[in-house]
Amino acid sequence: MSFSFQVLARDGQTWARRGRLQTPHGTVETPVFMPVGTQATVKATAPWELEELGAQIILSNTYHLYLRPGADLVAEAGGLHRFMAWPRPILTDSGGFQVFSLASLRQISEEGVSFRSHLDGSSHFLTPEKVMELEENLGADIAMAFDECLPYPVEYAEARAAMERTARWAARCRAAHRREDQAVFGIVQGATYAELRHESARRTVELDFPGYGIGGLSVGEPKEMMYEMLEETVPLLPEDRPRYLMGVGSPDALLEGVARGIDMFDCVLPTRIARNGTVFTRQGRIIVRDARYARDFSPLDEGCDCPACRHFTRAYIRHLLHTHEILGLRLTTLHNLRFLLRMMEEIRQHLEDGTFSAYCRGRI
Amino acid sequence: MSFSFQVLARDGQTWARRGRLQTPHGTVETPVFMPVGTQATVKATAPWELEELGAQIILSNTYHLYLRPGADLVAEAGGLHRFMAWPRPILTDSGGFQVFSLASLRQISEEGVSFRSHLDGSSHFLTPEKVMELEENLGADIAMAFDECLPYPVEYAEARAAMERTARWAARCRAAHRREDQAVFGIVQGATYAELRHESARRTVELDFPGYGIGGLSVGEPKEMMYEMLEETVPLLPEDRPRYLMGVGSPDALLEGVARGIDMFDCVLPTRIARNGTVFTRQGRIIVRDARYARDFSPLDEGCDCPACRHFTRAYIRHLLHTHEILGLRLTTLHNLRFLLRMMEEIRQHLEDGTFSAYCRGRI
Repeated sequence: MSFSFQVLARDGQTWARRGRLQTPHGTVETPVFMPVGTQATVKATAPWELEELGAQIILSNTYHLYLRPGADLVAEAGGLHRFMAWPRPILTDSGGFQVFSLASLRQISEEGVSFRSHLDGSSHFLTPEKVMELEENLGADIAMAFDECLPYPVEYAEARAAMERTARWAARCRAAHRREDQAVFGIVQGATYAELRHESARRTVELDFPGYGIGGLSVGEPKEMMYEMLEETVPLLPEDRPRYLMGVGSPDALLEGVARGIDMFDCVLPTRIARNGTVFTRQGRIIVRDARYARDFSPLDEGCDCPACRHFTRAYIRHLLHTHEILGLRLTTLHNLRFLLRMMEEIRQHLEDGTFSAYCRGRI
Repeated sequence: MSFSFQVLARDGQTWARRGRLQTPHGTVETPVFMPVGTQATVKATAPWELEELGAQIILSNTYHLYLRPGADLVAEAGGLHRFMAWPRPILTDSGGFQVFSLASLRQISEEGVSFRSHLDGSSHFLTPEKVMELEENLGADIAMAFDECLPYPVEYAEARAAMERTARWAARCRAAHRREDQAVFGIVQGATYAELRHESARRTVELDFPGYGIGGLSVGEPKEMMYEMLEETVPLLPEDRPRYLMGVGSPDALLEGVARGIDMFDCVLPTRIARNGTVFTRQGRIIVRDARYARDFSPLDEGCDCPACRHFTRAYIRHLLHTHEILGLRLTTLHNLRFLLRMMEEIRQHLEDGTFSAYCRGRI
């Protein structure tokens, strides 16, 4: 099969590693941040722009595509890569997170989950087998197993039951999956209970997946608790498989995650805050739609090489946001994505150069 | 001064001509369609995309920029070209049309117009001199004179009074204008009364502008009436000056306008209908957001070379529009602009080749 992972270099002082993921649609240099294209589009961007920004792999959401336009339609279009004109690697999540956060009237049984669509209230029933079928229809390079996601905080008993069910569903996903040009990743759950994380990691690794997601974090718990859970989980995952921390994408958490041995990240944060007029800078976030930037003729972030910073001023972008112009959302989105993608480029370079720990010290 | 116009070729059978406009920011091959960038952005597009589509000159709206972000701020940014990162020619309208169509509580006197902003109800007073000052601050290559625009239908007496005031205001604009790197165009008014159009043309031409707008058309009158007014007006305009039919941009009206000796056009139509999910095709307009295109895996318009048609299917674009994704609006906008810009390229080629009349025959 056309999927493999290789660790190229390790940082001595942290668990960080520099890796390379081979997929049917090309190579991904890790650690990597994956922009999120929920509905088969990374909001406000075109695929050629993502390439220019240095995106290597994007994530798309099975739940959303299942509801609209339907995974069968995407298959008929030749798969997600062709449908959205993104020829590089794609990862699809399993819909688990969305079923447990967006849908209503959820009823969970051992067989699967029934729920009502957040769009039109229509009834649906998803099982691990059905999710595998949907993800095979979408045809991403990496398909995540169907898991049960919990909010924070949650009682131990509930967390244990969900973790155990997730492990049983992972086995069913593994058994049901057919496409040889697609890798399935299992997902470690266990909420914020170290004991459950240990057990979840052991049970998921037993199933021998080509990669592992760490789910159920960044759902409201303090960041320190998330880092602690990573420290409990990562040592139990095999060295030769990629580790994917799901739903994490703030600059500080990316760095903390890499230092704890994470290879892959995704998050809607950069694109979502961009559409609210908030942009990353090396001096922290600024709300560029604020009146204070009305006559600020400097770029969003001095030294940034994104299209927004190369061509436009804060004053112009503020004007666009203030007047509800689409280009404003486009420019803040391009900037925030480039900010994170460039940060990951720097991290990879420091890992190659053996200077990662020094790079971290100034930042975390 | 760095502004000139040259007629390169004429069609024998119609009044169509192939021309070239020199401006401080470059050359414009005519007949030309100008995309509209109301608020210093052609909605949903970036300037480098407009260049790729073949846009040569864009229009921006003085009324909107006066209200937000203010012409003084644009001047402080280095002018409109720098503010919006469009290094090619720009034309600004005078705000006349917007004052008479968007603003409220208008009071017209010989001195000027007082009105309330459509945004916040704030009070404003514009005179020909003030408009010239605003347009000089914006710094476009071409600035339109301040005119009084009327709706359709309108009584003769009212049309006459507005036409006469427009002529007096044109003289005041001419006298007040200072920038040598900016050309002012006078505007012919007169509603749908041939006699008033004649008088307006004579009085405006007497002021010897480097170019002439034809205003007050495409405001609700039948198209045949608009074409008749062009036939009454164009012969009275000097052969060696560009003629600009304001606010016209449907494919059929562009061709009819060119055949009646028009060199320049602008209209929000292509970008506005694009955002409603309507696209031009060689077989007429289609509403691509309709359910009938859900599984149509062909491009918006077979043979089109725009980015939307080169990369994506109707089914994908329909999905984007249906799910309110920004990329959907971007793609339909790029397509519609390219459709008109390419049509103008064809028209120019046919005028050079002496085949324009034959080209028209199949179409109008």
